[in-house]
Amino acid sequence: MYVTPMSRVISWDLPRPAVTRRQPIRFGYELLRGIAQVDFMPNAACGLFFVAALFAAGWQFGLYGLLGTAVGTGAAYVLGVDRERIGAGLEGFNGCLVAVASAVFLGPDHASTWVMAVGGAVVASVITGALVHLLRPWAMPTFTLPFCLVASVVTIAAPGFQRIWHGGSALAALPRTASGTSALDWSGLAHAFCANIGQIFLMPQWYVGLLFLAGIFVADLVAGLTACLGSVIGIVTAWALGAPASGVTQGLLGYNAVLVAMALGAVFLERGVWSLGYAAVGAAAATVLTVAVTSFFAPFGGHTLTWPYILTTLFFLAAVPAFPRLRRT
Amino acid sequence: MYVTPMSRVISWDLPRPAVTRRQPIRFGYELLRGIAQVDFMPNAACGLFFVAALFAAGWQFGLYGLLGTAVGTGAAYVLGVDRERIGAGLEGFNGCLVAVASAVFLGPDHASTWVMAVGGAVVASVITGALVHLLRPWAMPTFTLPFCLVASVVTIAAPGFQRIWHGGSALAALPRTASGTSALDWSGLAHAFCANIGQIFLMPQWYVGLLFLAGIFVADLVAGLTACLGSVIGIVTAWALGAPASGVTQGLLGYNAVLVAMALGAVFLERGVWSLGYAAVGAAAATVLTVAVTSFFAPFGGHTLTWPYILTTLFFLAAVPAFPRLRRT
Amino acid sequence: MYVTPMSRVISWDLPRPAVTRRQPIRFGYELLRGIAQVDFMPNAACGLFFVAALFAAGWQFGLYGLLGTAVGTGAAYVLGVDRERIGAGLEGFNGCLVAVASAVFLGPDHASTWVMAVGGAVVASVITGALVHLLRPWAMPTFTLPFCLVASVVTIAAPGFQRIWHGGSALAALPRTASGTSALDWSGLAHAFCANIGQIFLMPQWYVGLLFLAGIFVADLVAGLTACLGSVIGIVTAWALGAPASGVTQGLLGYNAVLVAMALGAVFLERGVWSLGYAAVGAAAATVLTVAVTSFFAPFGGHTLTWPYILTTLFFLAAVPAFPRLRRT
Repeated sequence: MYVTPMSRVISWDLPRPAVTRRQPIRFGYELLRGIAQVDFMPNAACGLFFVAALFAAGWQFGLYGLLGTAVGTGAAYVLGVDRERIGAGLEGFNGCLVAVASAVFLGPDHASTWVMAVGGAVVASVITGALVHLLRPWAMPTFTLPFCLVASVVTIAAPGFQRIWHGGSALAALPRTASGTSALDWSGLAHAFCANIGQIFLMPQWYVGLLFLAGIFVADLVAGLTACLGSVIGIVTAWALGAPASGVTQGLLGYNAVLVAMALGAVFLERGVWSLGYAAVGAAAATVLTVAVTSFFAPFGGHTLTWPYILTTLFFLAAVPAFPRLRRT
Repeated sequence: MYVTPMSRVISWDLPRPAVTRRQPIRFGYELLRGIAQVDFMPNAACGLFFVAALFAAGWQFGLYGLLGTAVGTGAAYVLGVDRERIGAGLEGFNGCLVAVASAVFLGPDHASTWVMAVGGAVVASVITGALVHLLRPWAMPTFTLPFCLVASVVTIAAPGFQRIWHGGSALAALPRTASGTSALDWSGLAHAFCANIGQIFLMPQWYVGLLFLAGIFVADLVAGLTACLGSVIGIVTAWALGAPASGVTQGLLGYNAVLVAMALGAVFLERGVWSLGYAAVGAAAATVLTVAVTSFFAPFGGHTLTWPYILTTLFFLAAVPAFPRLRRT
Repeated sequence: MYVTPMSRVISWDLPRPAVTRRQPIRFGYELLRGIAQVDFMPNAACGLFFVAALFAAGWQFGLYGLLGTAVGTGAAYVLGVDRERIGAGLEGFNGCLVAVASAVFLGPDHASTWVMAVGGAVVASVITGALVHLLRPWAMPTFTLPFCLVASVVTIAAPGFQRIWHGGSALAALPRTASGTSALDWSGLAHAFCANIGQIFLMPQWYVGLLFLAGIFVADLVAGLTACLGSVIGIVTAWALGAPASGVTQGLLGYNAVLVAMALGAVFLERGVWSLGYAAVGAAAATVLTVAVTSFFAPFGGHTLTWPYILTTLFFLAAVPAFPRLRRT
């Protein structure tokens, strides 16, 4: 979501395409960077790993992810958005997530799901434009807000439309007190560590998470290490406070901590000890917030998505001007 | 909610009163424009049609509408608001809607309802002032936000007060999956088309909707056509996605689409093919959002009101600076 | 939350410490002012009364309050916040409330509650910094927003963590229609009057409320009278609209009215007849809003806290530029 200065990053990328009239090649690079931007990486090689991870989770998820990125980027072209934003992949990642979320929550096999994925990606492009404007007074990035807004609306509305909803009774229910053991064995820990990365794309499989992590490391060594730190903090916080192990091992409590740690520790603040400590506090706070957001959405059938990451990072970034020890990139 | 340049509008209005000391006549014009501003029309003749429509729905609704507009406009005078805003009717329409909503949701026959209508209209004036200030950094109009805020608070709080609430058990319930046929016959289509206009004032009767539509056409031919387009898009979207026909024929799924289509297609953007297409996308999005907002409000007994219109138009207008093909009026 | 000009206030305070290197004494003054700032009073003597009131409610509440204020103020030092804000107590009051709320809602006797109180106070410091920045375009104070955000998240998330939650089944429930008499006898009136002051710190005992009121009067005679006015308006509004007497006597319907009356009548607006009338309208509106917010939070187990005060004061202050008869201090 932000172009980190390349000089400060140990990274590797695909060879840049020469300035060329061959639109399809340039568009392909923009697609890959768009998918990589879900984890802040404007890096086509990283995007290749992410595409592989989605296909590893299921060929339909790979197609949905590519389609959503293409629709979001294409809508930005049609509407005449600034080319630099498109080139960095900043117009594609929300469409990608909207399409993948549609597949996960509405079922990938229905024609209606493809329609909602495309329509949602178009609207996400409009909302991206809106948020760039609305957040300008604070020079704040848009995070995954367009994705969260569109995917929340689609999933909350879905049970009210018979041609969209094939999931039986609606999900709405009052939140309940946690039950079940919170103890984690080594296998659970390893699963949780990887799933915390994979759940950023709504995928719980450990090997999918590992592929995503590999992509981040290829693009930016420090960002990869920060993602690992965030995953550990998410697990430790959830375990220490007594979250049920079943949710922790699926990565449901830690993916927001990963995103917050990367955002504050490696992307939006100058890297250093203070920003790393700040990122650690933010990651722990995001883990508690994840459970609160899940309870908030329960009575009307919404999903947690990356709302906790957005809210935490928004407040922690907005506070930076008050704290002289921290500095925005 | 916005004075469209008269030169570009095919319209008819009552003869303007000469600049005069006769306050009651000027105040009467301001009342009529205030009611007409619910549908963006700063036009006294249009206001006459709207008053007629409210009385056609029930004499009490007519009185509530006039009272609310008068209280809102009067409060603006007392507090010393800018005269130009008052003259355009911009200080009256939220009070009008607050009073009508009180009558609809709390029952028009109770003395307590009149008290809430008056008190709510006063507070809506304050909130109008607040939102003008809060939204200034983005040069954003206040839409029907003051109405939605006040009416939401009043209706959600009402079951907690024994002297206000005469409706039996509270409305709060978990949202459920849609059931019932989504097929529409010609009669249902005609009802839905008119009710989509009438529900902007919370009225489901087809003839009331027709009177409102006539008022819009009198004030502005293009705005009337855009309202029709919005109504059609609302019906088609709801039917295509499988919304139950019972809600569609009552206009419950389409009134936000009408408002969005008018706002983006005829009022806040320069008219043209691009803004019309943009308005169509917005109207379809607002139809989905309507169902999501209804589910969101269900567990604590709130009403959908025009929240979906406000949210959709806010984001679609805020995105305009990013899209060179569109321009604000 | 705002330093009222001392010249216009009939007040008494502890002797100011001479500029000194003795950090502990200065920090002690900052603690007392931090606690007093919950009711807008940058006054150490007032803080002494407030500490006494908390200890009168229970020795643990006193300790939690002091701890939260110390952590909030300390975090501000570590992060390098502006010394003037710290000196006025503006960095301590949210931490104080977060810690007291943790004790009230999670049980004061658990080690986990102390952990949440400390962690919450740290995060409240960050959020205070963020809100100062986010609200700057409107020159708006942060009110108790950091407290409300943190305490809402902690209490909503708590039932999801087995080591934090010791309260049996979760609180989430659909809101129900009011039942029980709304008639108040003299004893009930007196209890309600005092409890409306005490509930600002979440304390329902009448003698605790009286001690808080005494502290306000010591700091600022007019503010004390305005608090009394707010308490009366809260009771009258709740009774007139038919709120059940059980809630009114516990102060649950009136504490937001007290805060709104003080904020608009004595702290943020120039004092006078118009601002007092404005404060009275705001206090009545806040009483209705209190019930709406309570219903809103019910399905996911949140608490009302001082959200109604924040929302009411935010809108009523934002509207001031539109009304020439009112002026910000």
